[in-house]
Parts: sequence; C-alpha cells; structure tokens
Amino acid sequence: MKVGILNITGYGGIELARILNRHPEFKITCVTGRSAAGEHLSTIFPHLSALDLTIKEQLDEEVDIVFSALPHAASAHQLKPYIEKGIKVVDFSADFRLNDQKEYESWYGTNHPLPGHLSKASYGLPELNRDSIKGSSLIANPGCYPTASILALAPAMENSIITEDVIIDAKSGVSGAGRGLSLNTHFSEVNESVKAYSVSGHRHMPEVVQEIGKLNDDVKMKLTFLTHLIPMTRGILVSVYAGIKDSQLEGKSNSINLLRNLYKDYYKQEKFVTVTDQPPTTKQTLGTNQCLIYPTIDIRNNRLIVIACIDNLVKGAAGQAVQNANILFGLPEETGLKDLALYP
Amino acid sequence: MKVGILNITGYGGIELARILNRHPEFKITCVTGRSAAGEHLSTIFPHLSALDLTIKEQLDEEVDIVFSALPHAASAHQLKPYIEKGIKVVDFSADFRLNDQKEYESWYGTNHPLPGHLSKASYGLPELNRDSIKGSSLIANPGCYPTASILALAPAMENSIITEDVIIDAKSGVSGAGRGLSLNTHFSEVNESVKAYSVSGHRHMPEVVQEIGKLNDDVKMKLTFLTHLIPMTRGILVSVYAGIKDSQLEGKSNSINLLRNLYKDYYKQEKFVTVTDQPPTTKQTLGTNQCLIYPTIDIRNNRLIVIACIDNLVKGAAGQAVQNANILFGLPEETGLKDLALYP
Amino acid sequence: MKVGILNITGYGGIELARILNRHPEFKITCVTGRSAAGEHLSTIFPHLSALDLTIKEQLDEEVDIVFSALPHAASAHQLKPYIEKGIKVVDFSADFRLNDQKEYESWYGTNHPLPGHLSKASYGLPELNRDSIKGSSLIANPGCYPTASILALAPAMENSIITEDVIIDAKSGVSGAGRGLSLNTHFSEVNESVKAYSVSGHRHMPEVVQEIGKLNDDVKMKLTFLTHLIPMTRGILVSVYAGIKDSQLEGKSNSINLLRNLYKDYYKQEKFVTVTDQPPTTKQTLGTNQCLIYPTIDIRNNRLIVIACIDNLVKGAAGQAVQNANILFGLPEETGLKDLALYP
Amino acid sequence: MKVGILNITGYGGIELARILNRHPEFKITCVTGRSAAGEHLSTIFPHLSALDLTIKEQLDEEVDIVFSALPHAASAHQLKPYIEKGIKVVDFSADFRLNDQKEYESWYGTNHPLPGHLSKASYGLPELNRDSIKGSSLIANPGCYPTASILALAPAMENSIITEDVIIDAKSGVSGAGRGLSLNTHFSEVNESVKAYSVSGHRHMPEVVQEIGKLNDDVKMKLTFLTHLIPMTRGILVSVYAGIKDSQLEGKSNSINLLRNLYKDYYKQEKFVTVTDQPPTTKQTLGTNQCLIYPTIDIRNNRLIVIACIDNLVKGAAGQAVQNANILFGLPEETGLKDLALYP
Repeated sequence: MKVGILNITGYGGIELARILNRHPEFKITCVTGRSAAGEHLSTIFPHLSALDLTIKEQLDEEVDIVFSALPHAASAHQLKPYIEKGIKVVDFSADFRLNDQKEYESWYGTNHPLPGHLSKASYGLPELNRDSIKGSSLIANPGCYPTASILALAPAMENSIITEDVIIDAKSGVSGAGRGLSLNTHFSEVNESVKAYSVSGHRHMPEVVQEIGKLNDDVKMKLTFLTHLIPMTRGILVSVYAGIKDSQLEGKSNSINLLRNLYKDYYKQEKFVTVTDQPPTTKQTLGTNQCLIYPTIDIRNNRLIVIACIDNLVKGAAGQAVQNANILFGLPEETGLKDLALYP
Repeated sequence: MKVGILNITGYGGIELARILNRHPEFKITCVTGRSAAGEHLSTIFPHLSALDLTIKEQLDEEVDIVFSALPHAASAHQLKPYIEKGIKVVDFSADFRLNDQKEYESWYGTNHPLPGHLSKASYGLPELNRDSIKGSSLIANPGCYPTASILALAPAMENSIITEDVIIDAKSGVSGAGRGLSLNTHFSEVNESVKAYSVSGHRHMPEVVQEIGKLNDDVKMKLTFLTHLIPMTRGILVSVYAGIKDSQLEGKSNSINLLRNLYKDYYKQEKFVTVTDQPPTTKQTLGTNQCLIYPTIDIRNNRLIVIACIDNLVKGAAGQAVQNANILFGLPEETGLKDLALYP
Repeated sequence: MKVGILNITGYGGIELARILNRHPEFKITCVTGRSAAGEHLSTIFPHLSALDLTIKEQLDEEVDIVFSALPHAASAHQLKPYIEKGIKVVDFSADFRLNDQKEYESWYGTNHPLPGHLSKASYGLPELNRDSIKGSSLIANPGCYPTASILALAPAMENSIITEDVIIDAKSGVSGAGRGLSLNTHFSEVNESVKAYSVSGHRHMPEVVQEIGKLNDDVKMKLTFLTHLIPMTRGILVSVYAGIKDSQLEGKSNSINLLRNLYKDYYKQEKFVTVTDQPPTTKQTLGTNQCLIYPTIDIRNNRLIVIACIDNLVKGAAGQAVQNANILFGLPEETGLKDLALYP
Repeated sequence: MKVGILNITGYGGIELARILNRHPEFKITCVTGRSAAGEHLSTIFPHLSALDLTIKEQLDEEVDIVFSALPHAASAHQLKPYIEKGIKVVDFSADFRLNDQKEYESWYGTNHPLPGHLSKASYGLPELNRDSIKGSSLIANPGCYPTASILALAPAMENSIITEDVIIDAKSGVSGAGRGLSLNTHFSEVNESVKAYSVSGHRHMPEVVQEIGKLNDDVKMKLTFLTHLIPMTRGILVSVYAGIKDSQLEGKSNSINLLRNLYKDYYKQEKFVTVTDQPPTTKQTLGTNQCLIYPTIDIRNNRLIVIACIDNLVKGAAGQAVQNANILFGLPEETGLKDLALYP
C-alpha cells in the first residue's frame, strides 16, 4: 500500500516515518512539509536518509492512504480533496475528533474548515471503537492525553463503579509541544523544572468527556483535567482520581484485586493495553505502542486511582495511527508495531 | 551561635551547611556523619572545603543549637541527650512531627524512641505555628511534601471554602530520595521517566491531615495523597484539588480573583510565601526558601485548584530549619535566607 | 536458531533481548541472570513480558549460539563449556578482546580464566574484521568506546595521512556504567554535571591501540584517551584529534572535501557506518546500529578532527553482537537491525 | 554604589541581578532590556520580584558603574556614552576582548563600533590581569570558554613546560547559548544528546590565543579548540591536552605530583581558583565563582592533561564581572561572591 504523509517535518510525522519504515505492508511514497518543500528529507533529518524521499509542496502521486500530521484547521483544509475522493485518511489533528462543531470552534478558536464531514469521522481509539473504525475511511486519531485518559477510565465507567467526580492530573514530556520554537520548550527554561499549564482548561479535555460519555448514559462526568510539563522528551503519565460508588468494591478487603481483575478482563483481548501489577513508568513504553494501566483504590477514602502511561508519540500519535491504518486495511492490528521498549 | 549538625553527609545536611555558611549569626562548629567519621569534610565533599571541618562520631563540643539530618528513629535516639539538657533542637526527621505515637509507629514501622517528648515538640511550619515555635526548644521540621501541601491548603481550609474531599497530586525531584543508593535513584532508570510511587500511602500524608485539621474543626478532610518521581534533581510541585462549598466564590464571575485575594491576604505578612498571578515553576524556587502558590478555580466544575512549589531541600528541609532557628533565637526570620533563585 | 543469553539482567542483555525479539531468524530460548534466577523475566522487567522467559541459573537447553553479557572474567569462566564444545559464542566482555594475555591481566587486574583460547577469538568489529569473524566461532564483541574510536580512525590510519600523535576525547551517557549501583550513577550526583573519569587510563584504550595497530605497520600510535561522563542515558560521541602528515591534504583549499571523500570511499559498502556532511549528534543514533562519522580538518593548525557517535548499547554492544551473529550464520548483516533512530 | 545593567533580560543579566542582590556595596538602580522595556521586571521574571525594578529603554539615572549584558556590537554601541564620560564599565560581550580590530571584525563579521577605545580596555581575568584591571575603567569580561581554558593553561605555559601543540576539547551546558530561541536550544532536540558545534572555529578561540600569548614569548601556541553541547543547563568543563617538553617533569616517577604542586603554587593566593586532588565535576561549581582545575600527565605518552570547570554564568560571566567590579572599586575581591555550590 502506498502512503502519503502531510507534514512529515513535525515530531508526529517523523515518528510515523520511523514506524512505517519497518512496516511490511505500507510504503511511504510521497511526503509534504510545512517549510522545507523541495529539500531532500535527509537534509533536514539525517537520521531518515534511508527513506530517500524529497519533501513536496503537495502529495503529487496516487496513494492508498493519507496520514496528516498537520496542525488543526490546516489539516482539514489540506485533507479535503482526499476525503472527498474517498481515500482513506488518518488525521493526527483535532479537526475530526469532536462531534460537535460548536465545541470544536469554541476550544480551537477557529471556524471548522469541513463541518459537513464531521459525522463521517470515526474516533480512532481502536480499543473502544474498533467496529466504527473498520467501517470508516476518515479516522480522527486521538490526542495523546485522551488516549491514556480514556483507556484509564473506560473499564471503571462502563462498569458503573465510579461517581461523576473525576480528576485527571496529567504529566507530559516536552515533545508533546512539538518542534515549534517557544520559551516553553527552550531547554534552559524547561530543564530541571516542572509546571502546570493550560490551567484554565486544556483542549484535550472535551475529547475525554465526549468519548467516556458514550460508555455510560447514567453518569455525566464532571471532569477536572490539569496538564503538567515534565523535563523529559517523551512519555505521558496520567493519574486519575474518582469516587467509588460500587457496593461490590466498597470497603471489601480484596477490593483492589477485584478492581484489577475487572480491568484485566476488560482489556484481555487487547494487544496494546497491559494492566500491570505494579505502578508503571513511562520508560517502560518508550518507542512502543503500549498503554500500561495500573488501577488501585485509596482504601482510606474509598477512591479509585488509576495510573496510565504511554509514549506520547507512539500510542499517543503515530503508532496509534498505524494501528488504525492496519484496521482500515484488514491487517492484524499489531503489524509493524511489535517493538519492545527501548530500555533504559 | 555555635551550631552542631548530626549527619552532614546527606543532602539535607549538605544544604544546611551551604546556607549556614553565609548566615551572619550561626557558625557550624561540629558535625557528625553516618559513615565518614574521621574524614575531613572536604574529602567527601570538595565543594565544602571552605568550611574546614572534620566529621566526628559525635558532637564533642558545646553548641547552642543542634540540627539533626538523620533518618527517623536514629534521629530521636541521638537527639535524646540534647533534648534532655534543654538545648535547642531542629529535627529534619519525622520523629516529632506526629502528635500521636501510635500513628507514628504505624506509618514508620518502628517503636518511637522518645514518646515522652512528643508533647514538647512544635511542628516547625512558621507560617502557621510561629508562636508555638517561639515557645519551644524542640522543633519538628516538616517534610518537604507537607510544607508545600499545607501552605497550599491552609487559606482555603481556614476560610471554610472547601469541602472535605481533597486530592493532592505531588511531583518531586529525585534528591528527595536522598543520597542512599537504590535502583529508584539510579540515573538510567530514573532519567527520562515519570512514575507514581508509595501508591498505597505515603508517610507524609498524616502530617498534612494533622496540621490542616488544626485549622478548621468543622471539616474532617478526606485526603488522597499521591506522590510522583520526576526526572530532575530538586523541586516539588503539588497540585491540590478540592470541592468548593463557599457561596461567596461559587459561580461568581470574579470568583478566581476573589480567591486569589483571599490567598494574598492570608499570606500578606509572610516573607517566604508568594501568591503568584501565573502558575509557578519549580525552577523559580531553586536554591531559595520561597513557597510559590497559585490558587485558581475550575469554573466548569466549581473545584478549587491550588498549585504550589518549593525547593525540596530549602523550604522543604534546610532552609525551613534555618527559618525555625532564626525564630528560636529571636532573629529576623529571613536572616541568611535572602537568596534569589538560581535561574536558569 | 536458538539463542541463549548469559546475564540478561544487565543493560547489554536487556537491549539484546529487545533486538532479538524482532529478529526473523533467532529465537531466545534460554536466559540466565546474575541475581534473579528462578524469577520470570517480566517480574524484573515488565517491559519484556512479551518474551515469556524464566531466568535460569544456567543455560539448560541446547542452543545454537550463546551471547554473554556477563562482566569480564565471569564471562570467560561461564563460556568455557560452550567454547570447548565449539558452540558459537559472542562475548560482550573484554575477556577475548586483547590478544596479549599479560596486557589483559595488567588492565583488568585478574588472571585470565581461559588464556589458551585467546588465539581462537576474533575481534568482532565487522567493518574491519569481517573475514576473520566469518571463520571464527568465538567473537569478542568490541567495547563501546573502541567501536566509535576505531571506526573514526581507521580510514585516516590505513591511508597513512596522520601522524602518531592521537588524542581521543570521549563522552558517554550513563548507561555505559551499567545497572550496578554506585554514587557515580546516582541520579542526583550525575544529573546536570559533566566530569572526566578514569583519568590515569581507561581499560578500553589498549583495544583501540591493538586494532588500529593492525592497519598500518609504519605508525606506532601514541594515543591519549580520556573518557567523560555526560548526563544522558544513551550515546557515545568521540572527538578524535591527530596531526596530518599527508601532502595530498596538507594546506590544500579543498582538503576537507578530499578527506571526506576518502572516508566515504572507505566505508561505501558498509550498512552501519555513515560518513555525514554535518557534525552528527548522538540522538541521531538512538536505538540504531549506526555509527555516524564526520571527518574534518582544523585548517589553521593542519590537524585532523573526526567526530563519531553511536548508541553505546546498540552499535556499542547488543546491536554489534547481532551483526556479528548474522555473519556467523551467513545471514545478511543488517537482518533484524534496520531500525531508524527514535527521534527525538 | 549605584549600578546600571544593560539588558537584564538575558541569562547573563539575570544572573548578575541574583549576585548583586546580596552584594553589600552595590545596588541595582536602573536596568534596560532588549524587548521588554516598560514592563516591571517581575512580570518577565517572577523570581526577581524582590528587586522591584522597571525595565527601561535606557539607563535614565546616574550610576557609578554600568554592566552590559548585551550581545557584541550592540554592547559597544550602547556603552559609548558611558565610556566617553569615564564611567566604569564591565562589558560581558566580546567587543573589547580582542586587541586587534581586524581579528575582531574577521571573527564577528561586523565592523567594530568603537575601535578607538580598544586600547583602553583591560581583559578582565583578574587572576592574570589584576593590575591592569585596577588601572582601567573599561573591562572586557572574558568569555566563558576562555575563562576556564586560560586558567587551565596559564601555569603550564608561563612555566614553559609544554610545547606549542595544544588541543582544548570543551563541553558546555545549554545556557551558554542564551535565551534566544533556536532549534539548537529546543528541549527535545538537545536533551539526551551531545554534539560538537562551531567545528570550523569557535569565536572564543582567539581570546585564548591572545591572552596565553602574553604569558610566554617563546611559544607560539597552535591551538585546536573544539566546543560541544551537553544536555544540562549550566556548567563548562574543558579538557586540555598538550605535549610536555620540560625535563623536570618528563619521565619522573613523581612528575604528576610535581605538576600539581606547580599549579597549586601558581594559584596559591587566588580565592576563586582551586587546584583539586581529584578530577572535578561541574556540579561542584554550581552557582559559585570557583574555577576548579585538575592537572595531570598521561604518563604513557608524556602529555599534559588539564581538566578545568566553572559555572559558565558565574565565573564565566556575571560572577567574574562582579569580581572585576570589586577590583575597580577597591573592594575585597570576594565581596558578594562567597557562596558555596548548590549541591546536588
């Protein structure tokens, strides 16, 4: 299958190139970049010289699938012709994640470029939406924070064991902020420091509410979602807190085991979600498409705690995109995604 | 004033030496170490050669004040003679922080070496306990996490604006784990990774509950307290979440401003607490005795969010110890503690 | 082919497991560990749970090849039976690298456990010793520093363009020091700091002298080799300095281009050495078996400068071991080693 | 004494503010910034709020001394009126470091703004030029690399124990590149990576040659000077290599001790140079004005090795500037500069 990549020159695009380079069924044949059109890819990224590609203004060849690693708005705009021709599309941006046009426009501060196609898009979190993805050709690849957050909450919410009060405290490495220059990503400012950001509300929050909302009609989640910047390159860890309302778990001596079994059972068929017996570290996911989830209970206060972590550029972006593409073409979901973590 | 330091060879002790070296009223005259007795301090720590001290087995000179940077249990044990003689003592360990002997023994897994002296100790958080500290000669220097946590919660709790449901998500640099060797502090394991630890309950939690409990009889806080290890050397940042119950703040358009003013007013006399107008970063506290606090409200869910950060070895340990010592001797509290942050 | 690994629990062994997991021809069937015998591998390393292996005291199955990631002396000792049976062996340790038993014993401070087998070993740097490796069944996998250093020097030395005076200033990430605990690898000591170590002579130096000595009989290299510890997990960069004696290069306006072409020509058949047009960074090698080499000239002083970098755990250890194993079994050298760098 | 600072908003300016804040004789009364004129300093740098200063377009008050932390060319341009009025000036930029106008213009690619004043400037390395500094009112504060390099070489060169062939391999933290945005200082690009840069020649090299040249007429140093970027915020370490020609040292069994004593003797009066008995680390200098120097000999090859390290923003910039200012006003040199290192 021939692959086109829109904007290979950001971190999402680079990572996609790395993964597809070893994929047995996909071949990158055409790529664009926002700034380096006309240059050979190896001039900008010497470590990608094996791919032997020139960065184009536009995809000028027929391809079987288009991955867009463009920012929001620019992405929908450039994807328009492919969507209209029915070519399979996986979009890394937020443009097709939110079902509600107004919510999109409120959070992203811009008109939606293609509102008429919102209803055709499938939210590309395979563990929850596999069937919908199979039947779609426009996949909204989830945000990095939502991937970890939704997977951490889903078993508890679908099984109705938690209350509506949910707090997610999320920690991300700096690569999540992309390759664009800013004091917020300037080494000497970021290194050896931690801070909260987007304190009045992060754009990834409505995705989490939307997707979790589909799992349980009875609970209208009240989600506080706070993001923090951590001095490391890759990795996201979310710590999820919620009240427990389930009588089966409440106050039982073995409630933590019951909870863990509930989570293990929920994900037992999944190749890319592992429910762990010890709190995980982001390092255990480096370079892999794994989401590690550790559910437990604060026994003193009867609160659920779930810790989940991923590599933000793999399961949080390019790896999940390939997982979605595998589904779109009927390939085994783990094709090209079997790497173990780079450790340490 | 002559100062003795028990266990100068840990990170708390080293930092105390750095601070006291520029203090105009205190002079370190005698120091001990757990392992390096007999050696000159500069052999172990070349950067402390200006102090010209030899590490002793015991404090073998008369001193006016003893700082103990020993671990719990060992600390109370070695402090016994000084306490009994009425010499002023500032203890970095947890031995005299908890009023309840049983709670101490349950969390620390050991008998208390000096339970008869628990009632004489004052919890050394000057911003809340200044008067008690003045009248005491045995100061239990607070833990690093509790310092940031209690200062972040105190104005809200004392003003009865929050409910009993409180979650603290705390992030710490690695120096908080001390100088002892462990895979948990091994560079290649810790670097470029984040994890939660002490998930079933961190020992610093009961301090927070105890001290906050003294501020408001009407609220029995249900505190979930989860700690995370961040790949940096110094710094603690806590993110505090609580429900808002105050009608003055609830749903008002200017509630965030009202809240911030309430915090600013609460700490208006304090030299070492700054209520900030932007979310702070730990880097802004490096090497200083400052606690930076940013209170805000999650308007969508009417929840309090407070972000607080400190340098864990200064306001979270040695700096606060000196602040307490200044109080004990009637010196201005900021004596020797006026450094600006080392930035970047 | 069935693979046995001696000591999978160090960083070299872990990395070997990661690489072999995706190798199409090798299958890990049996592993040992120095401390965790009897435990399932996933208990110690959750990120390796996909391998489903139990750590044994000894290799208790027939295997086609043994990789030893044991330290020196222990390695030769445990490899003895396999060597004597003629089973193919790749040894990560220094035990079979030095041809001269006395030199080994002088640098490593121990008697050589198997001096009678030294002459059978081949120094496993395929770019220089491919034929020798093919005909051997005992491969001494080179050290991390020597791999980068020898590859950086070889074209210049074999073409007789440099004098005997050579200085190598080497910088390494911390994973090179292994998984053993030490203040030298304690996060808070190492982070945000750089230092020189083994200043009186690093054990890897004689390997470099020995192997470079085979390339040119006319030059007896006088090598100063100084190693530095850098606050990062993976990566080695060496900066090589030497006097230029070749009249073809000396003082010519295009001498830098001539030099670069000489290097490119020397390595033109190599899959794992890339002569770059810009100074490389270690990040460009992360997780790959590539050695990037940038040769240039200090025109003012007519000195050669060569900068080379590798991932110390891949081309500097486990990746090179697999490259050697591919040669031993007549497989294409790049089998299982085609990954692009994990960037950023 | 009233102090004015030109461009307080770069890292050199910020650090100067930190140091002067605790200086008993200097008071910052007026500051400018390149971009933030009109703003209160605390808006840009909350950690400097204690200074209570507004950033001005120009110094609009009388001051006793002006520190300029502007880049080259801009610095001389803005300093012109103060120099002409005879106000004492310490310039962090390169504008007055090189005695030869043409060499300046060749390395910095711009016309010199004030060539007529070059001869009045004193190169502000007090350990070598103390008398000259005392008699001057225009101090060219040395570059960070030259400070460590010159101090490392001076005893050997002045005592004629080395040959003309000198190689300096320098490693710097990222703060040396300043606060300006660039991919070269973008966290995700720089973190976990090391690289050589300015490979064809770093601008700091001619300073080293010039100043060392003044120490020994008989040796015309042939200096290769290569700089590397290290993933840490602060600190410079230089590794200096040179041939030994002195018969007193050559081949003697105690030559290393003789060398160390020669260095100790050379610097025995200096408060800010320490000749160490163990290889130093940059962490031992964090926040201090110390230069740590470790001289040794590669006995196998009879070569000098000197390792030196500093905090690039203190002894390499702001601290040395204050040391120079102390000399200009006849104060003890260590006034305001007695801090011990922030460790760890």
